[in-house]
Amino acid sequence: MHKIIGITMGDPLGIGPEVISKSLAKFGDEFSFKVFGDPDLFPNLSAKLLVPITIKSSKEKYTPQLAGKAAIACLDRAMEFYQDRQIDALVTGPISKAHVQLAGFPFPGHTEYLAAKTQTEKFVMLMAGPKLKVVLVTIHEPLAKVSALISQQKILDTLEVASIGLRQDLGLTDPRIAVCGLNPHAGEDGLLGNEEIDRIRPAVEEANRRGLKCSGPLVPDAVFHEAYEGKWDLVVCMYHDQGLIPFKMIHFRDGVNVTLGLPLIRTSPDHGTAFDIAGKGIADSTSMEAAIEMALQMIDNRRQTTDNGQI
Amino acid sequence: MHKIIGITMGDPLGIGPEVISKSLAKFGDEFSFKVFGDPDLFPNLSAKLLVPITIKSSKEKYTPQLAGKAAIACLDRAMEFYQDRQIDALVTGPISKAHVQLAGFPFPGHTEYLAAKTQTEKFVMLMAGPKLKVVLVTIHEPLAKVSALISQQKILDTLEVASIGLRQDLGLTDPRIAVCGLNPHAGEDGLLGNEEIDRIRPAVEEANRRGLKCSGPLVPDAVFHEAYEGKWDLVVCMYHDQGLIPFKMIHFRDGVNVTLGLPLIRTSPDHGTAFDIAGKGIADSTSMEAAIEMALQMIDNRRQTTDNGQI
Repeated sequence: MHKIIGITMGDPLGIGPEVISKSLAKFGDEFSFKVFGDPDLFPNLSAKLLVPITIKSSKEKYTPQLAGKAAIACLDRAMEFYQDRQIDALVTGPISKAHVQLAGFPFPGHTEYLAAKTQTEKFVMLMAGPKLKVVLVTIHEPLAKVSALISQQKILDTLEVASIGLRQDLGLTDPRIAVCGLNPHAGEDGLLGNEEIDRIRPAVEEANRRGLKCSGPLVPDAVFHEAYEGKWDLVVCMYHDQGLIPFKMIHFRDGVNVTLGLPLIRTSPDHGTAFDIAGKGIADSTSMEAAIEMALQMIDNRRQTTDNGQI
Repeated sequence: MHKIIGITMGDPLGIGPEVISKSLAKFGDEFSFKVFGDPDLFPNLSAKLLVPITIKSSKEKYTPQLAGKAAIACLDRAMEFYQDRQIDALVTGPISKAHVQLAGFPFPGHTEYLAAKTQTEKFVMLMAGPKLKVVLVTIHEPLAKVSALISQQKILDTLEVASIGLRQDLGLTDPRIAVCGLNPHAGEDGLLGNEEIDRIRPAVEEANRRGLKCSGPLVPDAVFHEAYEGKWDLVVCMYHDQGLIPFKMIHFRDGVNVTLGLPLIRTSPDHGTAFDIAGKGIADSTSMEAAIEMALQMIDNRRQTTDNGQI
C-alpha cells in the first residue's frame, strides 16, 4: 500500500536539511515523501516533493529567531497535512530549543508540541536501535529529584503506553519488557533504597494485573547486558542517564527517537542541530535514514495490527 | 623477572575454586602461583602450588559459616605471604558477604579488608575491560543520597588515586581521564542541577592544578560513547550505575576488578560466588583469566615505573 512520509527540515541553520537531502538520495521510489522546508535549502529536490516554507526572502540570512520561526512553520504545515490525511507519518528534523523559544514556541520540544496538537495526554519517548530499545519514566530532571518524581502512576502510565506502542507500532505481538530498579542492585531488598519496594514493584504488579506483561524491578547493571544479548525487547528506565548512557554508547549513530502514544506516527533522528558542523557537508545521515526506515515500518505495523483487530 | 601470583579460592561453596582451576590450566609456566584453598577442592593442583587451608575435615560439609571462615582464612594466609614478600600480587576469588559476616568478618568486602590490612586510607575500585575502564566516586548508595555524598574532596581523592594508579599500575604515561557530570547533560549550566558547578568542576580544576590531567564535568551520555570509541582511558563516575550499566553491558564476561591505591597489587574477577551454578562445572572462567592476566601486567608495569623513577 502507498506510504507517504512527511519530513520537516528542522532548524535551517542546523544539519537537518543536509541529512534529509542525503537520506532521500538513498531511498528509492517505494514510497512518497513530502519535505516541509525552505526551497533554497533543498535545491535538488523536485518541486512536487517539497512543501515550500518561506518566511524570508532568498537574499536574507537566517537570524536565530527567523530560524526558529521557520522550524515552527514547517511543523505547523506538516500537522495540517496530517490532519488532512495527506501524510501517514512524520519524521522531524532537529530543532534548536533556543531558536524556537525566540520565535515564541511554548513547548519544551517536538514531543510536547505534537501531544498538544493531537490532544494526547499520555505519551512516551522511545529510543530505538538495533541492539537496545529504552523508554524513560523521567526525562530532563536533576538526578537528586528523580526519586521524588517516580510515582507508581507515572511508571504504570509509561508501561501502558510503551506496551501498546510496541505491539501496535513495532509489530511485537508479545513484547518482553524489563523494568529497571532505581538503585544499585535494584535496592537489594531495601538495603540500598526503598523505591523498588514502595513504588516500582507495585507498578509492575499492577501492570501485569492489567495484562501488560513486564518484569521487574530488575538490577540495572545486569538488565542492560541481558537486553544487549537479546533477552529483552524494551528496557523501562527510571531516569535519563540510566537509559541514555548505554543506549548512546552503542547507538550513537544509528539510534532513532520515536514518540509512542500519539495518534500520529512520529520518529526523528537521535541527534541535535549540530550547529558546529552545519553547512560543511560532513553531517552523518545514518540516524535520519534509520528514522525514515522506522517510520515506514511503523506504518506497515500499524496497518497490520489495525487490520487484524489486535489492538 | 620472576612473578608470583597469589590466588585465594574465595567461598568454597561458590564458583571460585572451579574458575581458578580452569584458569590455571590455561596459563603456562611463565609465572608461578600460590593458590590459597581447600586441597579437596583442587584435586589436580600440584602440592607445591597449593597453600592448604583446612578448617574442616574432608568428610564434613561446608556450612555457610564454615565457608565464610575458610574464605577469610585464605585471605589472612595470603596476606602473610604478601607481608613476607612471597607473592607479588593477589587475585581474589569471590566471597559471599553473608557467609563471611556469619564468620565474623567486620568488612563490607575484600577491598576494605585489604585497605585495613595495609593501612591504606585512599583506595579506588577500578573496573577494567578491553573497551572501558571506570572508577566510582560513590559505590553502594541509594540513588537519592548520591548528590549529598559527592563532595569536592571525595572527587579529588578519587582522581588522585586513579591517576597515580593508571600511571603506576596500568602503564599509561599520560592517561586521558574523563570526569562525568552527575545530572543529565551534565546539568546544562545549572538548569538540570548544580552539582557540576558547585562541586565537580572545582574538583576537576583543582586536580588539574595539581598536575592530574583530567577533563570534565562531561555529558554522561556522550562520554561513554567517546570512551567506547577510544577517546578516554578512564571514565570517572559519580555513582554505581552510571559506570556499571555501560561497563557490564559490554564487559559482562571479561571485566576485571582492580583495587588502586593499595601497596599490594590486587585484582579479582568481576562476578560473585554464583551459588546457583556452583559445582556444576559450567562456570565461565574468562573473567578470572583476565584478572590473572591483569595482575601479571600490573607487576611488570609497576616494576618498570618504579625502575624508571616515574612515580
